[in-house]
Amino acid sequence: MTMIGPENADQARLLRLLRDDGPRSRVELADALGLPRARFGAEVDRLAGQGLVETAGPAASRGGRRSSLLRIAEQVRFGAVTVGEGRLDVALTDGELTVLARQAEPVDVRLGPEAVVDRVVELLAKLRAEAGLARLAGVGVALPAPVAVREGAPVSPPALPGWHHFPVRDTIAAELGCPVQVDNDANVMALGEQHAGTGRAFDDFLYVKLGNAVGCGLMLGGALYRGATSGAGDIGHLPLSEDGPLCVCGNTGCVEAYCGDSALVRQAVTAARAGRSTALGDRLAAAGALTIADVAGAAIAGDPTAQALVRDAARRLGQVLVDLVSFVNPAIVIIGGAAPGIGPVLLAEIRGAVYRRSTPLATGSMPIVLSDLDDRAALIGGARLISDQVFAAC
Amino acid sequence: MTMIGPENADQARLLRLLRDDGPRSRVELADALGLPRARFGAEVDRLAGQGLVETAGPAASRGGRRSSLLRIAEQVRFGAVTVGEGRLDVALTDGELTVLARQAEPVDVRLGPEAVVDRVVELLAKLRAEAGLARLAGVGVALPAPVAVREGAPVSPPALPGWHHFPVRDTIAAELGCPVQVDNDANVMALGEQHAGTGRAFDDFLYVKLGNAVGCGLMLGGALYRGATSGAGDIGHLPLSEDGPLCVCGNTGCVEAYCGDSALVRQAVTAARAGRSTALGDRLAAAGALTIADVAGAAIAGDPTAQALVRDAARRLGQVLVDLVSFVNPAIVIIGGAAPGIGPVLLAEIRGAVYRRSTPLATGSMPIVLSDLDDRAALIGGARLISDQVFAAC
Repeated sequence: MTMIGPENADQARLLRLLRDDGPRSRVELADALGLPRARFGAEVDRLAGQGLVETAGPAASRGGRRSSLLRIAEQVRFGAVTVGEGRLDVALTDGELTVLARQAEPVDVRLGPEAVVDRVVELLAKLRAEAGLARLAGVGVALPAPVAVREGAPVSPPALPGWHHFPVRDTIAAELGCPVQVDNDANVMALGEQHAGTGRAFDDFLYVKLGNAVGCGLMLGGALYRGATSGAGDIGHLPLSEDGPLCVCGNTGCVEAYCGDSALVRQAVTAARAGRSTALGDRLAAAGALTIADVAGAAIAGDPTAQALVRDAARRLGQVLVDLVSFVNPAIVIIGGAAPGIGPVLLAEIRGAVYRRSTPLATGSMPIVLSDLDDRAALIGGARLISDQVFAAC
Repeated sequence: MTMIGPENADQARLLRLLRDDGPRSRVELADALGLPRARFGAEVDRLAGQGLVETAGPAASRGGRRSSLLRIAEQVRFGAVTVGEGRLDVALTDGELTVLARQAEPVDVRLGPEAVVDRVVELLAKLRAEAGLARLAGVGVALPAPVAVREGAPVSPPALPGWHHFPVRDTIAAELGCPVQVDNDANVMALGEQHAGTGRAFDDFLYVKLGNAVGCGLMLGGALYRGATSGAGDIGHLPLSEDGPLCVCGNTGCVEAYCGDSALVRQAVTAARAGRSTALGDRLAAAGALTIADVAGAAIAGDPTAQALVRDAARRLGQVLVDLVSFVNPAIVIIGGAAPGIGPVLLAEIRGAVYRRSTPLATGSMPIVLSDLDDRAALIGGARLISDQVFAAC
């Protein structure tokens, strides 16, 4: 595969500036990079020759000779993939990581990695063809699993049976002929926040991902921190109690066994069957099953049982966050992946638990907020993940 | 004050190489820095002119023209200070951070920061005079407190009443006319481990500091991670239970209220008075009080009550570490500050608690070990702290 990308650190910085801040004038960019004009022009020419940057018209005049605007070239398109436990979401972004085209469909991850990865490749190839491109600049993939990033494969993923060590990265790279990166979904969503969300303003933040699986991305000192073996942020199976409910991982009392979507739904079904909630009982009778959206809907509509379930899960998550926040001392905690509408209830309980018991230096003024990126976080983050690699000096 | 130090990144890297690896030949160093010989020679000349490096004799021959060895100049001496809750420890190190001279004495931190800092300055001036130096290259200070590093002062320190926002850094710097850095003792000890301990081999480790106060230093990606407001690693006041013993911080059930030395001693006194331990009872009757060394001694000698106290504290510390280790995914955990001889008992319990409940990707092969630096960790770390600043490009 032909490797296209910056040849040196200055070219890499230029590409990242254009990705993160959008089109800018040559004069501003040369200043930002601290390069003499001639040298700057030579670097731009080399990037333009590779089809990575292009002129986007004249810049607003600052007096004197008019400068022209540069931008990432139109033909630079990143692929982004989110494998959810029930949903596959594939997108193309431009070089500034704005989602341009997107296709989502249900997926059964228990069909195994070959079938799902084949479908990912098909969808990416389709979007690539619709965009009239011969090649993607790269693809970033978010999996609901612990991922050994150097290997490009999930490791012992409770939610992806049969995917252990499947070479997701290398399979997609070989099929599409472009660089691919794979990471855990909470990490990828943290990257999305860093690029386009509230996280943009902070070097140090935690992104907490709710859902069937509960995870956390650690943005420390402006970079995603993955730990010694890509395991940082795996909070889903931390023990909340010695003898709580059984978890999919085989242990008892894990965070996910209390706070994961499935756990909430299971408790809601029990409550409905026991006649403790008319709202949940009616819904169960009508649909034959409950979803997290049903639980959220009942809670928002004021059903006390549903509200108690949500509040209890949030309070338990808050207990875990007390430790993590005191330990890492982030500037902000961003929470994403909550069922629509349920955020404010969750937030109130989580804040209560965290503010009540954390240390003054770590949390005196630390905000806890909801993500405002909704389900685009993982797609923007996937594009960010691979663009960080493609826009790095060789 | 005259600022002495490297003028550029290459000079800074050269000084750090010599600090970390000791004397090396000019040929090796030029290779390691990737500098042409003439340029390398010019940088060395400038550092030698500032009195920062010097020739240490001929290098072993590798054939061809003989190279000479370079080292940090003899006159480069760092001061290191550890303020313990009952003990002041002051040292001078050479440029490779080996402790050359040291003086320790009891201290009562409740006398307030002015008295203690005055004494620190006196002791440093005395060691400086004995070494025949006009000036120290810098001083690193470890405090048993949360420290706002940018401000150079402790913040709301439970163990240092009256020290809140006292300008420890600036006071010492003004008195001694050299750069000073102040940090939390667990952070400083982690730096000591990074320089001269087991931590040398790892980019990502946690250093857990036991003692009256319990703290943690986070070495992430080869650098000390302090968090958004210097609060990272403050684990002493994490809640282990909602309604445990009262802590000095005013909350109940904190880690320190279970695992700190004072908590262990308090429980030992209670046990001795209740006649539950002959060994502790005899010691209390003889000395009128117990120390952590007494508790450790009784545990090592096989006293079942003392052993149970130590085991219980270690198990509770292990419960906290499960969360932190899963969250940060370090390559290794290093435990320091335990009372002499007690380490193996502690370690067995901590390992049991951590290995039993942590996630496979984070801890499948993660060692938990005792520090082998004993009470030098904080002094070497103090020198490392200030040398990282002095040996950085201006």
